[in-house]
Amino acid sequence: MELKRFFSNSKIENNGFVVLENEEHNHLKNVLRFKIKDKVIVVCNDNFDYVCEIEEINKNNSVLKVIEKQENKHNPKINVSVFQALVKNDNMNLIVQKLTELGVTKLIPFESTFSTSKIKEAKTDKWQKISNQSLKQCKRSLCMQVENPVKFSNILPMLKNYDCIIFANECEKTTSIKNINEKANNIALIVGSEGGFSEEEIKQLLNYDAISVTLGNRILRAETASIALTSVTMYKFGEW
Amino acid sequence: MELKRFFSNSKIENNGFVVLENEEHNHLKNVLRFKIKDKVIVVCNDNFDYVCEIEEINKNNSVLKVIEKQENKHNPKINVSVFQALVKNDNMNLIVQKLTELGVTKLIPFESTFSTSKIKEAKTDKWQKISNQSLKQCKRSLCMQVENPVKFSNILPMLKNYDCIIFANECEKTTSIKNINEKANNIALIVGSEGGFSEEEIKQLLNYDAISVTLGNRILRAETASIALTSVTMYKFGEW
Repeated sequence: MELKRFFSNSKIENNGFVVLENEEHNHLKNVLRFKIKDKVIVVCNDNFDYVCEIEEINKNNSVLKVIEKQENKHNPKINVSVFQALVKNDNMNLIVQKLTELGVTKLIPFESTFSTSKIKEAKTDKWQKISNQSLKQCKRSLCMQVENPVKFSNILPMLKNYDCIIFANECEKTTSIKNINEKANNIALIVGSEGGFSEEEIKQLLNYDAISVTLGNRILRAETASIALTSVTMYKFGEW
Repeated sequence: MELKRFFSNSKIENNGFVVLENEEHNHLKNVLRFKIKDKVIVVCNDNFDYVCEIEEINKNNSVLKVIEKQENKHNPKINVSVFQALVKNDNMNLIVQKLTELGVTKLIPFESTFSTSKIKEAKTDKWQKISNQSLKQCKRSLCMQVENPVKFSNILPMLKNYDCIIFANECEKTTSIKNINEKANNIALIVGSEGGFSEEEIKQLLNYDAISVTLGNRILRAETASIALTSVTMYKFGEW
């Protein structure tokens, strides 16, 4: 029987104990009804799975003692950041969940000309929580970092940190991801909302060496484009 | 301004008229509030977009006259069928919508040892409707055919119709889609539910020349596996 996984925001303490609070404590105590001495795995955004034994189950927290530290084998080997134009919250939730499973390192939501949602509607804390839940399910131990949303113009200077920058462009007819060199360590994917990017935005992305690619002949919903482009990127750059 | 798209279950009549009923009529009349003489596009599961002018808007149907027949440019060029183990209905709805957008030709749901939903819970008619809605959004004109669900054992004889059969296998460590020959016309993808396939099922699939592939190091939810594998297949076999 595989051990259940829990996520902790704080690192393992020097004495080898970890404390679960809030949702994770509630999940352990009231949903899965674990008892003292039961074993679980705790991950805390480093490269390890910590096999723990439950020492205390209190009203507001549980205390767990680390009994074994194992290297996690489910973290992504390549570094992919997704710059995602804000879309309606239901779709954003789906994107956050799926991109975590697929192995994205960082998600940077942004507001563009055609965004179907605005920065002030963003739920960054909730998205991070959804991602941390998804992380347990897919067994990675390193978080997908969900950044606070920014304006389109603010993503441009960030792009210089990447050696391969790809954006999904409905108007692109010729260039496919197949045309891109397979050697890259830091990959940025840029996905618009329904309606894609404005002409001015496309011009600016090209100026920053972003490569415009087609995702095929059909018009994909924003969340489909994001999940499909991420899947193909993981495949192409060696995660599959 | 792009013309709105409608779907008709019946072919264009010889006299060049088409009748919309039920949801499509309601959508035209009460949601989008079209008027007589307005122009729309009708698709009816052939290779064309029919530009139509609205002639009548009645209580229970609308009558449209075809004024131009254009070749549809958004249909898939390759033939991909997805054999999908039944999962909970919300996830099945998502799979149906996304696979339509991605260009799948046929979806065959099946009940396997670890299916999280049973044949008797299947909503084939509803799934076909969801797919036909998605078809309008992604602009294809040929339907993704949603078949009635079958038992796992019944999918095996169907596999002989395909020249490339791929199944997503959580236990697969070495073979990736990269190892598969790119020349194939009829491709079958087989995706399990959470928990994948039983040992016996895997043995049978291999006996039918299905190729077991990894989708990377993380454990994907069933619907994520389905969408991700379809995306990569479309990319690999030339749709992107």
